[in-house]
Amino acid sequence: MLETLKTPSPLTDFFGPIRDDLAAAERIFQQELTSEVPFIRELVAYLAHYRGKRLRPALLLLSARACGQVTPQHHVLAAVVEMIHTATLVHDDVLDEATMRRHVPTLHARWGNSASVLLGDLLFTHAFYLTSTTGSAEACRIIGEATNRVCAGELRQIGERGNLALSEDVYHEIIRGKTAELTACCCRLGAMFAGADEAVVHALERYGMELGIAFQIGDDLLDLVGTENKAGKSLGTDLEQRKLTLPVIRLLQTASAETSHQVRQLLTETGNHKRERLLPLLQSSDALNYAAAEAEQHAAAARDCLAILPETPYRTLLAELTRRVVRRQA
Amino acid sequence: MLETLKTPSPLTDFFGPIRDDLAAAERIFQQELTSEVPFIRELVAYLAHYRGKRLRPALLLLSARACGQVTPQHHVLAAVVEMIHTATLVHDDVLDEATMRRHVPTLHARWGNSASVLLGDLLFTHAFYLTSTTGSAEACRIIGEATNRVCAGELRQIGERGNLALSEDVYHEIIRGKTAELTACCCRLGAMFAGADEAVVHALERYGMELGIAFQIGDDLLDLVGTENKAGKSLGTDLEQRKLTLPVIRLLQTASAETSHQVRQLLTETGNHKRERLLPLLQSSDALNYAAAEAEQHAAAARDCLAILPETPYRTLLAELTRRVVRRQA
Repeated sequence: MLETLKTPSPLTDFFGPIRDDLAAAERIFQQELTSEVPFIRELVAYLAHYRGKRLRPALLLLSARACGQVTPQHHVLAAVVEMIHTATLVHDDVLDEATMRRHVPTLHARWGNSASVLLGDLLFTHAFYLTSTTGSAEACRIIGEATNRVCAGELRQIGERGNLALSEDVYHEIIRGKTAELTACCCRLGAMFAGADEAVVHALERYGMELGIAFQIGDDLLDLVGTENKAGKSLGTDLEQRKLTLPVIRLLQTASAETSHQVRQLLTETGNHKRERLLPLLQSSDALNYAAAEAEQHAAAARDCLAILPETPYRTLLAELTRRVVRRQA
Repeated sequence: MLETLKTPSPLTDFFGPIRDDLAAAERIFQQELTSEVPFIRELVAYLAHYRGKRLRPALLLLSARACGQVTPQHHVLAAVVEMIHTATLVHDDVLDEATMRRHVPTLHARWGNSASVLLGDLLFTHAFYLTSTTGSAEACRIIGEATNRVCAGELRQIGERGNLALSEDVYHEIIRGKTAELTACCCRLGAMFAGADEAVVHALERYGMELGIAFQIGDDLLDLVGTENKAGKSLGTDLEQRKLTLPVIRLLQTASAETSHQVRQLLTETGNHKRERLLPLLQSSDALNYAAAEAEQHAAAARDCLAILPETPYRTLLAELTRRVVRRQA
């Protein structure tokens, strides 16, 4: 745990008003994952190196505070959503064969396929066990359902790999599943367990959904135009994996026959430097601005959902988050 | 679903007395996993080709019947344990890079790493969601905890790969985790949801634990001495993965310095035919009989646990299962 505290995330200060709540959730996360088996301890300790922004527990706790109270159940559930998110990161690195995350080698690169698959499974199953300790079958249902939708979204993305005719609609369904269902679930649980009424729970769930969509479009943009040094992870993996994201879909929709041919060839051939070669084509089209505007629209929709809440520093932070997820792309 | 019914398991007749209960659980399994996404439908449909004996749902349902009643919750939970077992099979094939299971190519061999990892995750998460629909946070806790122990057992096994000094004690802890925790959980849930009193629940949980250990020792023996044609799956994978199982541990403990050297060399070098070359060494030692006797002891211990139950056809079947899991090795 010391290790975790030594490497604070850039959002640590940002989340100042819920610092104590985040620390409580982090203690649960660490305590729950202690093990008597040295190999498991070693793998779990390594996770501290590349866990990130604590966005999901923060969403859950901010939603709770914005609705008036944080209970011990909230701290448990905040640890749960971080555990689930960490499980998906570990498995994502297996899928993408990624070598770097947050400036260090991925678990997959260091311990291989088997250990990564099983560590992800260990985190998923522990998260479900931990949810049940709240005594709420409803929390188990919400967490189980959201996590299942995350997997279905990711699986659908795999199924659409190499589909150069992928539509914007299917892209949206995929990112809604793989990212936004979990952020929506965080906000819903935060509000629900604070005793908020149904309209507020629904508004915060919607906020989480829109924020998640904006965040994922931003992430997909970063994978195309970001710098590996700043991002701290392998980029261009979507192209390597032949996963079409919004800017590329837009480019293919609007390009001349010649450019479109060029893009299709680039996406289907094997070999490196796909990202570098695609970039000028993206830049001379409206694709990057189109995707950024789409992200901004969803962020604005998320902000609108917050009107139902009383004015508090927590609501202000939730609103500020909708700006941050979009600003990342610049 | 038709596909599933067309390929009955050799245990279908054996489980005759709970045929209707198994069919109800199977309907839930199939209905729950329907999907609007063709790719997911295709993967799920393929699972029917290599799901096997339905041992875990049968244990849950037999335990329930042996305690007096089967409820709709039992059918749901029987589908849950089959889903969890199927998830572990799908991920096991990824870990072992196995190419065949139940006489057909594995999902991993056909659709690759990514689809297999995510399909396993989809099954795990769906199983947890489905558990929550019983409305029992206690069921969620038991399922979450048991599944977590399965993963920890498998992870520990990975960590001990290549450890030629693996002790019998650690071997037992590993197989208890990776196999017996789930069979114990099945019997416990069956008894609990039938309203059995604590002593009976405990006895059946113990039965499931001992049966699972006997079963896994049998499986490990099969991996060394079985024929691929009968087993319908890749064999010798434990040796390929440098996982020491009971017969090999015993052989290394009892062999002469010369034989021990030979075995160690065989296990550490790369190359094929490990199984064929190890077999004569195993056969000229007591290792195979030793492991078979150990399996028989655990099977007998499982039988002893059944004394607390009234005499019914279901108790008879539970007792008969303890003979079958051992007889497989002959």
